[in-house]
Amino acid sequence: MTRQADLEKLTGLTRPHRDMINIMPLQTGSILTDAARRMLLEFGDGYSICDFCQGRLVDIANPPVRQFVTEMLPEFLGSDIATLTYGARDGVFMVIHSVTKPGDVVVVDGNRHYSTAVAAERAGVELAPVPNSGYPEYKVDPEGFAQALRDRKAALLILTYPDGRFGNLVDAARVGEIAGTEGVPLLLNGAYAVGRMPVRMNDFGADFIVGSGHKSMASAGPSGVLGMKQKWQEVVLRRSALHKTKEIECLGCTVRGVTLATLMASFPTVVERVTHWDEQVAKAQWFSSAMEELGFTQLGEKPHRHDIMVFETPALFDISQRVRERGFYLYKEMESRGIWGLKPGQTKALELSTFAASREELGQVVDAFKAILEKYR
Amino acid sequence: MTRQADLEKLTGLTRPHRDMINIMPLQTGSILTDAARRMLLEFGDGYSICDFCQGRLVDIANPPVRQFVTEMLPEFLGSDIATLTYGARDGVFMVIHSVTKPGDVVVVDGNRHYSTAVAAERAGVELAPVPNSGYPEYKVDPEGFAQALRDRKAALLILTYPDGRFGNLVDAARVGEIAGTEGVPLLLNGAYAVGRMPVRMNDFGADFIVGSGHKSMASAGPSGVLGMKQKWQEVVLRRSALHKTKEIECLGCTVRGVTLATLMASFPTVVERVTHWDEQVAKAQWFSSAMEELGFTQLGEKPHRHDIMVFETPALFDISQRVRERGFYLYKEMESRGIWGLKPGQTKALELSTFAASREELGQVVDAFKAILEKYR
Repeated sequence: MTRQADLEKLTGLTRPHRDMINIMPLQTGSILTDAARRMLLEFGDGYSICDFCQGRLVDIANPPVRQFVTEMLPEFLGSDIATLTYGARDGVFMVIHSVTKPGDVVVVDGNRHYSTAVAAERAGVELAPVPNSGYPEYKVDPEGFAQALRDRKAALLILTYPDGRFGNLVDAARVGEIAGTEGVPLLLNGAYAVGRMPVRMNDFGADFIVGSGHKSMASAGPSGVLGMKQKWQEVVLRRSALHKTKEIECLGCTVRGVTLATLMASFPTVVERVTHWDEQVAKAQWFSSAMEELGFTQLGEKPHRHDIMVFETPALFDISQRVRERGFYLYKEMESRGIWGLKPGQTKALELSTFAASREELGQVVDAFKAILEKYR
Repeated sequence: MTRQADLEKLTGLTRPHRDMINIMPLQTGSILTDAARRMLLEFGDGYSICDFCQGRLVDIANPPVRQFVTEMLPEFLGSDIATLTYGARDGVFMVIHSVTKPGDVVVVDGNRHYSTAVAAERAGVELAPVPNSGYPEYKVDPEGFAQALRDRKAALLILTYPDGRFGNLVDAARVGEIAGTEGVPLLLNGAYAVGRMPVRMNDFGADFIVGSGHKSMASAGPSGVLGMKQKWQEVVLRRSALHKTKEIECLGCTVRGVTLATLMASFPTVVERVTHWDEQVAKAQWFSSAMEELGFTQLGEKPHRHDIMVFETPALFDISQRVRERGFYLYKEMESRGIWGLKPGQTKALELSTFAASREELGQVVDAFKAILEKYR
């Protein structure tokens, strides 16, 4: 039996590190805007977005979901049409489940997110990965997709753009060309692109693009977007035979509440911030250089073109072998310096993102690593 | 091109009726508790629940997701194990997709929610409905399930408990007996039960139960729960072959943010409030009588045992034939009296819920109908 005290603890949960410098790859793109934060209270109750729903989430006029979905999102995604999802992975599954059948082959880059593999398993399709180049850059050659399509008859091609570990950006236009030549639809997984950097699926000849509200669009989660070419509407957004207004692949409707309110409220800021992507890239490159000066090695593409990065940090690992807290010392040292987002226990290779921190704050991050190296020398 | 002014509107969305008397069936069970409202700001940012995630949402120790999912939810649902979902429909699909194969037959009550039909279509299974008794009670006889199982070999049985239109409660224990005798797994769709009334799947011999955070658990949406017997763990919560910690049917993880925080924060209140269900039923019956005294007819079971109800209101329809605003006059009249939740335009039959309003407020609702009838006599 659950004790009453444990139950009561649920009413007072807190996040003490909320105002620290955040470098966690999962979180830097989804810190809410002030407008979104106001929406939390306004649309907190369940089904709050559905006050005036007449049967279709995407057709709600007040708040302007319809305009957001039919006009603003397609413009932003470079797609013909768009819809709402629970997140990027859910969009990936919707597409796989709609355009393939069990037993089909789906060609994917070797750096794909785990959820793409899980979505493929759920749909009963086989993934054929295009391998990356291995240590230290882990690059995926777009020509690998051409080879894969020669080797196997594929029903779909998925490109992770960028991947969530190395932050590598494959030449998506070339992949789109290959997909077009072979007549295989291309899905871009833009979970770490849409809302951070300019990305329009039409520029790449892609058929689909998914984005994540809670990864990169300054939104609460779960929330996501899916853009596609018009010709896929009848396939992916097909309607129920019995309930003619309801779409089958999203089970009728998806983000029916506060997370859609935050996605919409942050959208003007998101539209604006992607125009400053060059500054984000410059900041990431500057940070990478500063980290390498400390003796760390940035993995993935160089020069780097995204805020998501991994560093090999053998000197930090060496320390973990000598201290009482083992790997956890690093997390604690960083936390005590106001820096949040390293995985507790990790010291060998650090995954982080420079998206949310200012250059000055990133300077503090570099200084923190420097101080830790000196402290334990 | 979207105009800047339209974009900017997204940052100032409001819900002016937030503090009105709410009788909308979709919303009365998910008005947030104060504790949940505090969580909105604390956990508003994307992926906020995942601060200390080590790879599995349901195993997060801080905040105590693990204790909530492995201990509190099973106790509450009367299940062996439980997990989190985006909502009741998503749980229904997870179960159908896991325990049936395309072409299978699923027996369901004739009052099922539209999303059950859509989930069945998505999974490629055929629904065999047990018809209701028709006007005016629309009752589903549990023996109809026995007949349906004699007629067709079924892979799964789904009972909507209660249905979301009439608020009828089928004898679930008898349906569970029938399912047990025939060896067919039973899924209870408790979207309007779990969090409102005491409901434990073990009492009914059910294999599965789904609940909805944003319908009945005082939570923001999307959020939901799924309870099941231990023996289904390997089927519904089966893990990925490649990514051993990730469950296939939920694509790795689901409610990774604020909606889980509100679900958890409201949970102590929800656990407590279901113990007062007899008061809710008494209130609903009192309201039903008062409405019938005005000349309206309550459809569905009588005496009624749930806060969700439909009334036939021909006198209100007659008025709509004579006034300039047609059916919209009723919505406006109610709104001007501080009452929210009737579907704009509807006058012939009104779907509503007495769950959130006090008896005094419901008295105001009855008085409002009375005043409207007199005004337009």
